[in-house]
Amino acid sequence: MDLGRRASVTHLYGAFEPRGSDGVARVGVRYGDRVLDLAAALDPALAARVAGPNLGALLAAGRVVWTEVVAAVAVLEPPEEHLHALADVRLLMPFTVADYVDFYSSEHHARNLGKILRPGQPELPPNWLHLPVGYHGRAGTVVVSGTDVVRPHGQRRQSNSGPDGEVVFGPTTRLDIEAEVGYVVGVPSELGSPVPLGDFADHVFGVCLVNDWSARDIQGWEYQPLGPFLGKSFATSVSAWVTPLAALEAAWVAPPARDPQPLPYLDDAGRAPGGLDLRLEVRLNGHLVATPPFAQMYWTGAQQLAHLTVNGASLRTGDLFASGTVSGPEPDQRGSFIEISWNGAEPITLPDGQVRTFLEDGDEVVITATAPAPGGGTIELGEVRGRIQPAR
Amino acid sequence: MDLGRRASVTHLYGAFEPRGSDGVARVGVRYGDRVLDLAAALDPALAARVAGPNLGALLAAGRVVWTEVVAAVAVLEPPEEHLHALADVRLLMPFTVADYVDFYSSEHHARNLGKILRPGQPELPPNWLHLPVGYHGRAGTVVVSGTDVVRPHGQRRQSNSGPDGEVVFGPTTRLDIEAEVGYVVGVPSELGSPVPLGDFADHVFGVCLVNDWSARDIQGWEYQPLGPFLGKSFATSVSAWVTPLAALEAAWVAPPARDPQPLPYLDDAGRAPGGLDLRLEVRLNGHLVATPPFAQMYWTGAQQLAHLTVNGASLRTGDLFASGTVSGPEPDQRGSFIEISWNGAEPITLPDGQVRTFLEDGDEVVITATAPAPGGGTIELGEVRGRIQPAR
Repeated sequence: MDLGRRASVTHLYGAFEPRGSDGVARVGVRYGDRVLDLAAALDPALAARVAGPNLGALLAAGRVVWTEVVAAVAVLEPPEEHLHALADVRLLMPFTVADYVDFYSSEHHARNLGKILRPGQPELPPNWLHLPVGYHGRAGTVVVSGTDVVRPHGQRRQSNSGPDGEVVFGPTTRLDIEAEVGYVVGVPSELGSPVPLGDFADHVFGVCLVNDWSARDIQGWEYQPLGPFLGKSFATSVSAWVTPLAALEAAWVAPPARDPQPLPYLDDAGRAPGGLDLRLEVRLNGHLVATPPFAQMYWTGAQQLAHLTVNGASLRTGDLFASGTVSGPEPDQRGSFIEISWNGAEPITLPDGQVRTFLEDGDEVVITATAPAPGGGTIELGEVRGRIQPAR
Repeated sequence: MDLGRRASVTHLYGAFEPRGSDGVARVGVRYGDRVLDLAAALDPALAARVAGPNLGALLAAGRVVWTEVVAAVAVLEPPEEHLHALADVRLLMPFTVADYVDFYSSEHHARNLGKILRPGQPELPPNWLHLPVGYHGRAGTVVVSGTDVVRPHGQRRQSNSGPDGEVVFGPTTRLDIEAEVGYVVGVPSELGSPVPLGDFADHVFGVCLVNDWSARDIQGWEYQPLGPFLGKSFATSVSAWVTPLAALEAAWVAPPARDPQPLPYLDDAGRAPGGLDLRLEVRLNGHLVATPPFAQMYWTGAQQLAHLTVNGASLRTGDLFASGTVSGPEPDQRGSFIEISWNGAEPITLPDGQVRTFLEDGDEVVITATAPAPGGGTIELGEVRGRIQPAR
């Protein structure tokens, strides 16, 4: 896919190093099947705010600089000598992740999980409609799109021996994805000072796509009472490209109505719409298996950020907080295989005859997304891609 | 307390900056009420492995260098010109925390919490005796001893209105501590490669003391199904000083017997003892309120590290993993106020007449610890101290 060529404005920011002798990491902006060495192409004053091995300096520079850079890129004639063919570069982690938080903000996903895991009980946990449920993940194992994922080992209960089944150890047998959208924090906040809803765009630079790989059997055995740990921490993949909020101005939409009314620090009624009309596509071995609609997320990024900091927790440059699995109301809008296969009970058959519940070795998952473009049409976000390697 | 003077070998490593004009952060080793600028005092070759604004370089240097540095410090006559009075310096975070993991490895603590929070049900969760339960915390809000802690706001259920009570927002009314020991990772590991039990000392540089501040009402409302989040993320305090494992050679003890036998990757039978005989003391406003025995932890640091990485999760320099609340079998050995006051039902009266269940504004908590010293006697670890400031 020629991501950049479809866009009226180039909107994919990342980090790369040329293969071969000039292997110095630098900030890149994507133009079709090429990537521009951004700091080399900007005027010196602005280049100084961008230069570095990844997006760290730009993230920390703040909203005024973000606006200037995006405006400068929009009118740039990219100089040929600073354009590198994608085939000749290695894409790197676009930023160093400080803290990684994962939310659980799709009502459809949460209800599906409730039906699957707690049949006969209320679909949503009692707190779910009152706050964006979330937890901290492992920042050190966030990897860039294209990184292989080794099937993890772990403890689990024998699946066929019931709730008191034997505890066994081995490679996960229920390896899953979670198709998500991540928000990338640029500007820090002070310890003790919450970030109100209205300050979202002063702190968040942009969005990326996230695949929060999950080992459901490991997670199911370990997660009580302190939450997911090894079932998630083996790998989380992010797109190599971050799209600035400035490129998503046409994508804001009103989130679903909330009932009950959120507490004041989460109440976005009367504010500019905080949802984002991103349309995700999930492909397994090249076949489209889900089209999760991000516009239908119950809690928005601004609400997640307000909640994350309401206790005074501070932000750092490079903090990443992700939406949780994006699932819509329809069966073909589910962003995880535990939902797509209904916990393995309903295998899917791909057009080439392959049958799947969870992921098998060699499987490749690619998550892409489009958003309405300023001036009409759509832009594409950077993909997040990963292939399963056998357990070691 | 003159920490250093009691020790035959100086064993407290941290970071400091002199107050005033020469405010450059550097690595320090404590001698009584003074701190030595370590890189300035070592020979140039070794100094180069230590120099930096904090322990980061030394942590990354690995076990051979750790041994060399500890041996060099043991025989050093600290030069007067590189000694700074503690009163003239500011102690800093001893290292930059990469990922922060908190375990739950005291059986007495876990059983107490089970009795308090789930009366009539099994005291331990089904997985507890099979694996060291743990979760990721917020690395960006780990603060150095002496940092004030602002009482956090958050959502909670009205305490007197039962499980379906009204959801309210405000400052926590159940602010607590968790007295813990933290392990500081120096040497990274590769993604996809577990760290076996026997490699613990190749990766872990040393230990610090940890106070994992907790807002029990916020935590109680939010923690299902994904674990603690805002009830913990407002602050975690660590001692300004890290004690190398090399200084704790006399402190190793056999952990309690395990039943059932752990899975092979966690089975430490026949290995050198993995428990540490650290004796913690918790003081509230100067009064001793608990003496938790670290030697009685069910899961050891080596087991925690083996579990943390068994799914292939990688380590980074600066990773911190903490033990979870240290509690012993006796009522005066409990390392949290939810246990000390039995969830508020049994207030304690301090010698000066103050009555407490949870923490009040202005309260100061200090956690200290001693360990058997090589050659007899004891050494003291660096304290972790924090005072509660009113909610903002």
